[in-house]
Amino acid sequence: MRNICLVVAYEGTAYRGFQIQKGGRTIQGELEKALGGIFGHAPRVMAAGRTDAGVHALGQVVNFRAEGSIPTDRIPRALNGLLPPDIVVRGAAEVPPSFHARYDATGKTYRYLIYTGGIPSPFWRRYSLMAGRSLDLAAMQQAAAFLVGTHDFRSFQASGSSVKRTVRTVSDISIREVPPLVIFEARADGFLYKMVRNIVGTCLEIGLGAMKPEDIREVLVRADRDAAGPTAPPEGLFLVRVDYPPDRLPDWKPGPDGGMPDPFLS
Amino acid sequence: MRNICLVVAYEGTAYRGFQIQKGGRTIQGELEKALGGIFGHAPRVMAAGRTDAGVHALGQVVNFRAEGSIPTDRIPRALNGLLPPDIVVRGAAEVPPSFHARYDATGKTYRYLIYTGGIPSPFWRRYSLMAGRSLDLAAMQQAAAFLVGTHDFRSFQASGSSVKRTVRTVSDISIREVPPLVIFEARADGFLYKMVRNIVGTCLEIGLGAMKPEDIREVLVRADRDAAGPTAPPEGLFLVRVDYPPDRLPDWKPGPDGGMPDPFLS
Repeated sequence: MRNICLVVAYEGTAYRGFQIQKGGRTIQGELEKALGGIFGHAPRVMAAGRTDAGVHALGQVVNFRAEGSIPTDRIPRALNGLLPPDIVVRGAAEVPPSFHARYDATGKTYRYLIYTGGIPSPFWRRYSLMAGRSLDLAAMQQAAAFLVGTHDFRSFQASGSSVKRTVRTVSDISIREVPPLVIFEARADGFLYKMVRNIVGTCLEIGLGAMKPEDIREVLVRADRDAAGPTAPPEGLFLVRVDYPPDRLPDWKPGPDGGMPDPFLS
Repeated sequence: MRNICLVVAYEGTAYRGFQIQKGGRTIQGELEKALGGIFGHAPRVMAAGRTDAGVHALGQVVNFRAEGSIPTDRIPRALNGLLPPDIVVRGAAEVPPSFHARYDATGKTYRYLIYTGGIPSPFWRRYSLMAGRSLDLAAMQQAAAFLVGTHDFRSFQASGSSVKRTVRTVSDISIREVPPLVIFEARADGFLYKMVRNIVGTCLEIGLGAMKPEDIREVLVRADRDAAGPTAPPEGLFLVRVDYPPDRLPDWKPGPDGGMPDPFLS
């Protein structure tokens, strides 16, 4: 059996999320169906991050095991011919038998777009939160800086989540303005359920002046979901990149776009 | 009766075009319905450019006549509360009784986006032509330069069009690269039916090496639709801006975004 890894971009608008579920289309369901068309059997697809309904991906990583002699470099084009146009395979690599897209990931980068124009945009509505006004960028940046490092992020975990170990290391958070957008980006060794959207929701409160930047320290310390701001909506969120140790992706060949480029915003 | 002018942005994907027709949603139909909700009667809306099915607008200009005392500066917000999210009113102004959005326009600017990434993008599919490869930008720019000026553009008019006067003055064409996009923009005193899409289709042939830049001179001279390249698809086209003599829009007040900004790409 070959173990094959794919880098996948998708617009999540029309999907109930990555993971297969009863009633409703999912990214996993579409990928497995298309793979069935190529390999004769539909393999189980494992993803680095099981994104929620409406969340997008520029560089989701998945792997699956399959028989068949199709050359690895022909897999993206073959799959893209079978997939709906809102899911695109950007690259493929054969990986060691033990490789697992989720368990081997050492880091993930998420991006969140906030549209700050006073009048909503018909073009950004699927890809951003519409704030409706400009934000205090410096205050948001100051708040975000408090989150960098190793902390218990329990306050930013969706309530009802059963995960016990809630300590994560955020290696970088950047908030920059590319008018009319504010672009939030965070990299960590892992994220708790809805952690990015809860951090963005809290930073937004700070950008709107409803909370002070240093309040976010208190939010962290309380380790209580009620201390943080509201959950930002899914349509602004993109899984940008997944990191692996170099020895776990030995056959990785960047595609014609140089691997995992940013197809939407640089 | 007041004569009111609106600047409107819309994503054309879900519409049969601007103009009301039997069977299918139209931009005009949605605007007239929303205006009916505000003014009690649904006025007839006149547009500067009757965009085709799937074509977008950043700064379409329309006008209509209505009674009612709602202050002009409150009209955009009131309409946006009634319109679907893919149509947005960006500004409103009261204009002289004789103002007509189409007949008073002295110029229009259209933009066309071409996506050049080797792998299609799930995010640009509604807003660009997917060329699938890089283009010879210099050749396209050289070809476009032949079109600037006053010419008979009959070769670039949709076949079957009944317009007799086919001379137009193109004041500017620019083709620039903002990877992964090539952005085509043209300004003229007016455009024939499908003229922009036929020019883009021809420039694309040149960018792909199927025609030489100087061939476009021959296309112009032949004054025959068969001489030009294929019609580029509607999803890449945006009506960006409509120009008027300053004395025809005396009450124009730029909105909170400064009038007619570019909500999508600068």
